[in-house]
Amino acid sequence: MDVINRRWRLARRPEGPVRREDFVLDKAPLAPSPGPGKLLVRHELLLCAPTIRNWISGKRESYYPTIEIGDPILAPAASRIVASDDPAWPVGALVVGLGTWQDYEWVSPEDRGIRLIPDGISSRTAMGLFGMNALTAYFGVIAVGRARRGETLLVSGAAGSVGAMAAQFGRILGCRVVGLCGSPEKARWLREDCGIASVIDYARENVPDRLAALCPDGVDVVFDNVGGEFLHQALAHTNRHGRIVLCGQIATYDVDDPYAGRPLDMMRIIYGSISLNGFLLNDFSADIPEAQQKIGEWAKQGLLAHREDLRDGFDRLPETFMALFSGSNQGTLLGRIADEEGRAL
Amino acid sequence: MDVINRRWRLARRPEGPVRREDFVLDKAPLAPSPGPGKLLVRHELLLCAPTIRNWISGKRESYYPTIEIGDPILAPAASRIVASDDPAWPVGALVVGLGTWQDYEWVSPEDRGIRLIPDGISSRTAMGLFGMNALTAYFGVIAVGRARRGETLLVSGAAGSVGAMAAQFGRILGCRVVGLCGSPEKARWLREDCGIASVIDYARENVPDRLAALCPDGVDVVFDNVGGEFLHQALAHTNRHGRIVLCGQIATYDVDDPYAGRPLDMMRIIYGSISLNGFLLNDFSADIPEAQQKIGEWAKQGLLAHREDLRDGFDRLPETFMALFSGSNQGTLLGRIADEEGRAL
Repeated sequence: MDVINRRWRLARRPEGPVRREDFVLDKAPLAPSPGPGKLLVRHELLLCAPTIRNWISGKRESYYPTIEIGDPILAPAASRIVASDDPAWPVGALVVGLGTWQDYEWVSPEDRGIRLIPDGISSRTAMGLFGMNALTAYFGVIAVGRARRGETLLVSGAAGSVGAMAAQFGRILGCRVVGLCGSPEKARWLREDCGIASVIDYARENVPDRLAALCPDGVDVVFDNVGGEFLHQALAHTNRHGRIVLCGQIATYDVDDPYAGRPLDMMRIIYGSISLNGFLLNDFSADIPEAQQKIGEWAKQGLLAHREDLRDGFDRLPETFMALFSGSNQGTLLGRIADEEGRAL
Repeated sequence: MDVINRRWRLARRPEGPVRREDFVLDKAPLAPSPGPGKLLVRHELLLCAPTIRNWISGKRESYYPTIEIGDPILAPAASRIVASDDPAWPVGALVVGLGTWQDYEWVSPEDRGIRLIPDGISSRTAMGLFGMNALTAYFGVIAVGRARRGETLLVSGAAGSVGAMAAQFGRILGCRVVGLCGSPEKARWLREDCGIASVIDYARENVPDRLAALCPDGVDVVFDNVGGEFLHQALAHTNRHGRIVLCGQIATYDVDDPYAGRPLDMMRIIYGSISLNGFLLNDFSADIPEAQQKIGEWAKQGLLAHREDLRDGFDRLPETFMALFSGSNQGTLLGRIADEEGRAL
């Protein structure tokens, strides 16, 4: 194949909020196959996930990918197999896994956690309702938070891609759910489409007052996408034996200091027998098929609202990604760089 | 009975380190029985536990007792029943539960979590090897931390009353145990008497360097009595899926700000799938008899070193209590205010 491959690489580590200048776009002929066992994939949809902000910060020696300066930006992707020497990975099949901000890429399926998407499921659905964010919400609420019928579940970033699923899974389990979001439009969508009756617009309402009013019996499970000040307010309302599920800390991602935010009231955690629990979707890989089946059933019964915020154009991937941090996205934010016929966008 | 009852009451809320002037001693004739169902007990041993520092701070609306100004100081106690109208609570029996810094007191057994100590166990053993601190260590290591054979357990305050038991329970379970303490004498005792080979003297050694040297494969379970800077150092060495057991935060008890200490590296917690777990002994009340049997067996096999630091004298209870915070106690710190024959000390 004689193709020109577009790619966005890391130009420099962002200082503070991510800017377009932190990325550099170039084009180069596609490299030949690096050897047997590799698939050539064409990326269609790239998930804009807050965690990518940490991958490019390069500050945290830790348990997750670091993107070096000059590297293509890593991102969860839905992709089409274009070349393969393995019949288990047929050409034309749709896959999801870790991709990069490139049109084409030679990948090793194991290294990138790539799996086949069954026929009949679109790339959009594979990245949305059945995607990483929905699964993260599922295991966070059910396995980590152990939310039970009759308990109160508090979700931050509740109109976000992960949060909206977490709030709805809580509702389906029979929890009293309180969701926080940052605009009247998001609040309306949560109430009317997601069936979350109790919503706090943190940008327009006093969060401690509203928490006191909406959670008179306290909170049993906190599903936190935000961190920072919210985590303190939530902890102050957490009941004895409460579980705080730490999914993300988007409030602090733009801050270079790993110790951003305020110290937690540790004595409240101790005396309250409260647990704070970090987790990653990878912890539950073995249970993903079961979770997807469950989510599929609930979706079929009309119990789940989901929306994708699809933004076309390879050239504006940085702007699409940046929308996450201004909170202007509505639902799962996906950068679309090729259509289903493989036409570049 | 015509007795004069000595009592120590809270004179004022401590600012910074506890001082003798924060307490006031008085004597008053013993009040008559407040009604049926109450026991009159004479306290013999009063446990000096760091948690009492929080009870007297009055700053934390929360899940635990607050001692008001003018109130007698609450403390776990071993006591003798002096008067009772209930045959289930016979006069002369030894009990443990929540007491106060007084010679005598009318108590309701349920309100104070009082239970009978079987014949043949001394008040000293009841408060030491079988007492609240040992049980707290037991459930913290086994139930909360889920420490397993072959894992690395890191214990702060390891020569303290709770810590020494936590370290030894870890050793018995087959963990590689690393203990932190603050003096060469304590380090020697931990090594020679408790069988903890890896000890860090935090006052004389560089903790991060020593942690790196002693825990080349990281730490799986942290049992933390100290908080503050230690918790950061421990978190930096905690493995994926590590469990941090929050037992105490003695490093911060003298600070009025509930948000003392530094913010935690939340992203490390999330990406590491690490959990921070508060707990109280009360969470495991139902399992106490089984735990005591287990501890008794281990003690009989000579697997457990334990030492009590018994300090006689009602008049110097404040000084005895203050020894906790200077770290000058050696083992479970008990204020003895009456001997086994009921003579006042």
